Amino acid sequence: MSDVAQQARPFRVAVVPDSFKGTASAVSVAEAMARGVREAFAGSAAGVEVRTLPFADGGEGTLDAFLGAWGVPARECRTTDALGRPVTARYGISPDGRTAVVETAEANGLPAVSDVPLRPLEATTFGVGALVTAVLEAGVEEIVLCLGGSATTDGGAGLLRSLGARFLDAAGAGLPDGGGALAALDGIDLSGLDPRARKVRWRVACDVTNPLLGPTGAAVTFGPQKGATPADVVALDAGLARLADVLAAATGVDARNLPGTGAAGGMPLVLTAALGAELVAGSQLVAETLGLADVLAGADLVLTGEGRLDTQSLHGKVVDAVRRSTPAGVPVVVIAGEVAAPLGDLRAAGITAAFSIAPGPRTLAELGRDVLAELERTAANVTRLVLAGK
Amino acid sequence: MSDVAQQARPFRVAVVPDSFKGTASAVSVAEAMARGVREAFAGSAAGVEVRTLPFADGGEGTLDAFLGAWGVPARECRTTDALGRPVTARYGISPDGRTAVVETAEANGLPAVSDVPLRPLEATTFGVGALVTAVLEAGVEEIVLCLGGSATTDGGAGLLRSLGARFLDAAGAGLPDGGGALAALDGIDLSGLDPRARKVRWRVACDVTNPLLGPTGAAVTFGPQKGATPADVVALDAGLARLADVLAAATGVDARNLPGTGAAGGMPLVLTAALGAELVAGSQLVAETLGLADVLAGADLVLTGEGRLDTQSLHGKVVDAVRRSTPAGVPVVVIAGEVAAPLGDLRAAGITAAFSIAPGPRTLAELGRDVLAELERTAANVTRLVLAGK
Repeated sequence: MSDVAQQARPFRVAVVPDSFKGTASAVSVAEAMARGVREAFAGSAAGVEVRTLPFADGGEGTLDAFLGAWGVPARECRTTDALGRPVTARYGISPDGRTAVVETAEANGLPAVSDVPLRPLEATTFGVGALVTAVLEAGVEEIVLCLGGSATTDGGAGLLRSLGARFLDAAGAGLPDGGGALAALDGIDLSGLDPRARKVRWRVACDVTNPLLGPTGAAVTFGPQKGATPADVVALDAGLARLADVLAAATGVDARNLPGTGAAGGMPLVLTAALGAELVAGSQLVAETLGLADVLAGADLVLTGEGRLDTQSLHGKVVDAVRRSTPAGVPVVVIAGEVAAPLGDLRAAGITAAFSIAPGPRTLAELGRDVLAELERTAANVTRLVLAGK
Repeated sequence: MSDVAQQARPFRVAVVPDSFKGTASAVSVAEAMARGVREAFAGSAAGVEVRTLPFADGGEGTLDAFLGAWGVPARECRTTDALGRPVTARYGISPDGRTAVVETAEANGLPAVSDVPLRPLEATTFGVGALVTAVLEAGVEEIVLCLGGSATTDGGAGLLRSLGARFLDAAGAGLPDGGGALAALDGIDLSGLDPRARKVRWRVACDVTNPLLGPTGAAVTFGPQKGATPADVVALDAGLARLADVLAAATGVDARNLPGTGAAGGMPLVLTAALGAELVAGSQLVAETLGLADVLAGADLVLTGEGRLDTQSLHGKVVDAVRRSTPAGVPVVVIAGEVAAPLGDLRAAGITAAFSIAPGPRTLAELGRDVLAELERTAANVTRLVLAGK
């Protein structure tokens, strides 16, 4: 290839960051990094091609990342929170109308109910049902469901009831909502279940491998942070076991030991057993749905980032997904609010370099205030350095 | 050139930092950066050659930089501070015995007398004389004299008196020390001056361009920070004028309007008029004396740094000297405690990229505590990124 031909090809940078949780959305992080990259080329004869993909790992911020990547506004519906109080919940539909993304925490999230004493035995996923119904009404073929941040431990019973199932006690009476009531569950009637909910393809972003029950199950592991006392934990674990028994009898599917069924208060139990959902690692699900590989193809430099880069980031989070999907030999640079992973771990994980956006001694509040400007500055510095090495 | 030949040549990194003032010496900064560079090559087939040169701009830390670059310990002599109290002062002699480096502030520094009320009219450079005598006794051919941080405004009269000159009033009596007494100066007797002090080559690191007198002179510009009241400033300015008159009459040299004579309380006046000293920009003087160009020759990457990188750093400071002496096309990267210079200024100055050592939100004290580890980490990241671009 001649020198002229080499010059004609622009330098390609893929910008695929997570959100900086609580500070900046993945969309704004990606835009700031892209500005920095272009700034590094200002006044240079070399051309640059920047592709941005706001990314997420299936947890908080995933809906916003999808909306940003799809370039669509959020849609809204009225529903109820984990304690039955009215809320407005957001969701997204892809431009082609085929895929919906739903963050269940929009309707059963823990932060939304932290203004009152937590009620772990009564907290319900019922409100998630209205969100699901809204996207079914929109006619999607696939629902990407993001769990995480839930206040509930009801195994998804509330959601299923909202979609038309009936949960009955030994006397044939309907059970009240909440994981605490499930201990009295005797039977389930799926005849009224919205048929669209069984026909649609469900893919559930799931980042834990906990089973439903026992010492590493939903109630024991995650119950206390939702306000469960030791006695509540025992009751919730028993309720989830009862739900698994009854669902297995009704559907023939016993999902209680499936890795990940313990996520989000056991919600994957009804999703898999009653609705045929597939559990997928969050960042993999997002990567597939948003076409990460296409964005990374042909890149000369990949920039990713997140609020805090630690050793956990290198396992199943956005940075890990980006690095895994990047062709060998292409530098992957992490720009973070805090770089807390040891250099050796980063190198072992295939990360080329990691820089904080901090320009010097700063408080967390100061860094948060300047996050977009500092992201831009750091991305420009990184890009200039890569170019200088060429 | 064949690929094999290219691989045989190691990657060359020149590490030429300033000290991080008040936190880490240039020597320890350079060593930490060098560790980071080598770390970036750990497990790599590529070879690396790291050259370190602890650097300085003629101000605080210059003596330590010379000692580090020369690989010699400090020598010491007993002398007196600006208020005449006994102190131990440090200096350095090059391994070949030809060059001495003296920081005058070791004997007339402002910090050393800040435990008592400042006495700007009496503060004297007399103690600097013992340092000069010590290096003359050592038989050096050249004295590199670093000004800056002085508590004195005596035009160097104390220094000259210590070397054998006599300062006389109209009655022929010896004047007391201090800039306040100079108003009564009527004559100077240089007959007793140590002849070695006139024979040795003096090069004086000077980073200001202020003249001796008037609105931008030594007394008006720097007097107040040494404790001078408005009335003191007037008296000191008059005393310096008198000294210039008398020296001009005695030596035939009138240096009062020489740019830089206003540095360090007018000390360059006696150095130039009575001792034939040459005033040189500090970083240029250090660069020449320590052989900066040799260290930078053939480098593939240059790392420099300082505690705080601001727009001033780009004019006459270490970063500026390093950048000016680096061959075109070789990336110069600044690693700093605080990056306070705008990206555009850095680019215009030819700095490739600048990174803070801060790994996230940190207080100044926290950053100071971890400065060497963070320098190492940042240097490793920078080096890996440059290599990745290759």
